[in-house]
Amino acid sequence: MSVQMNQSLSVDCAVFGFDGRLLKVLLVERRDYDPGTHLDRLKLPGAMILENETLPAAASRVLAEATGLREIYLKQMEIFSDPARVTGKELEWINRSHGINTERVVTVGYYALVKLDRRVVAYTTEKRAQWVEVESIQRLAMDHKQILSSALWYLCRDMQQSPVAFELLPRKFTIRELQNLYSAVLGIEIDNRNFRKKMLASGFLTLTDEREQGVAHKPARYYTFDKATYRKAQKEKMRLGFLNNWRY
Amino acid sequence: MSVQMNQSLSVDCAVFGFDGRLLKVLLVERRDYDPGTHLDRLKLPGAMILENETLPAAASRVLAEATGLREIYLKQMEIFSDPARVTGKELEWINRSHGINTERVVTVGYYALVKLDRRVVAYTTEKRAQWVEVESIQRLAMDHKQILSSALWYLCRDMQQSPVAFELLPRKFTIRELQNLYSAVLGIEIDNRNFRKKMLASGFLTLTDEREQGVAHKPARYYTFDKATYRKAQKEKMRLGFLNNWRY
Repeated sequence: MSVQMNQSLSVDCAVFGFDGRLLKVLLVERRDYDPGTHLDRLKLPGAMILENETLPAAASRVLAEATGLREIYLKQMEIFSDPARVTGKELEWINRSHGINTERVVTVGYYALVKLDRRVVAYTTEKRAQWVEVESIQRLAMDHKQILSSALWYLCRDMQQSPVAFELLPRKFTIRELQNLYSAVLGIEIDNRNFRKKMLASGFLTLTDEREQGVAHKPARYYTFDKATYRKAQKEKMRLGFLNNWRY
Repeated sequence: MSVQMNQSLSVDCAVFGFDGRLLKVLLVERRDYDPGTHLDRLKLPGAMILENETLPAAASRVLAEATGLREIYLKQMEIFSDPARVTGKELEWINRSHGINTERVVTVGYYALVKLDRRVVAYTTEKRAQWVEVESIQRLAMDHKQILSSALWYLCRDMQQSPVAFELLPRKFTIRELQNLYSAVLGIEIDNRNFRKKMLASGFLTLTDEREQGVAHKPARYYTFDKATYRKAQKEKMRLGFLNNWRY
């Protein structure tokens, strides 16, 4: 074995959105797609890092191009460095479409959370990108199905440890929407009454005066997430001394 | 800006050890060190990734070479991708000592925790590596002082959230040693009585029949860390439902 030359570094992003019922991920078409190659057409948004660009800068660039958004919840998850992750025809495609001659691509996986509002959907539709229900995805280009699976695992973990769920919801949401989101990400049925009780007991949800409109069932009330109270409570906890923060 | 070619990927490891009083880090001499270049002589152990090698495999290889140990607490922390992190004479040294021609090196930082027993010290001394008190280190090769600072930050954070401290202690330790360790990593004075009370209240320390020997002061009792009880308590907590795990 010798030191690797002709290697490239890329970023790939699983961009999640939630439509009130289903968890979706943004997929784009492979550049210079040629059905004759029998390679999968859809992939996660990604790019090679440029000269004079850090990895986080590359990830932000990819996200801005893919979603039109600059202020976005973005988190680095893991590095995919399996030497066999991109080989053969997939490696040929990379070299052809980038005009380079690399022998290996290590990629850094990120996940991003966006509020799936009309503006974002209009932008991505214009770019011919698609929001696809996560559960329906069987195959993706290269090892992107693997990267997506990892991203789901990180999202699932983070949603249980911190309030990232609210990055996926509109500013005003119903408890039912919040429950649907947890249910979609955790992949489990959640008991209505327990969920509502726990969420309200957290002290971080603020009831608004507004209700759903034009729904067949009894219109539910909208809530907002009280970030300031959450942050204050978190600081309070930090002050209590390090042993109280141990995960036991 | 264009896609980066001729770039390399490396791993660098901050290997921490604790001698009962001071926190130390393992430093090695730069290969082909030439005082005439005025480059810093000492660096963290590290290596370029090899063909057919993943990043974690490269990190394990570096650690095995540096410490002689295979089963070691090893954690990836962050990626250092600043395009200016290694330039000029430092980049020349890399190319000369590796016989390559790279224009940029992105490195993945790891930290490792070892029990500083006689066997490890004998091995590292034989290899002419040094255990240096962390606080005394002013400069290191390349951006390794920056990587060391990051590693300290991660260690400090992790020691407050999980029982990684015990990876640095011998199997049997006194409460005083544990306190010295927290004090060294957190960089603060810790109140004796409070610390002892909290640690014993955690329920994860088991008193042994043994006491210190040959000390001037009243010999202290040795404790062990009860990993099984800790893990059980952690699982118990996970079962309570996701909202109890929120960091508030």
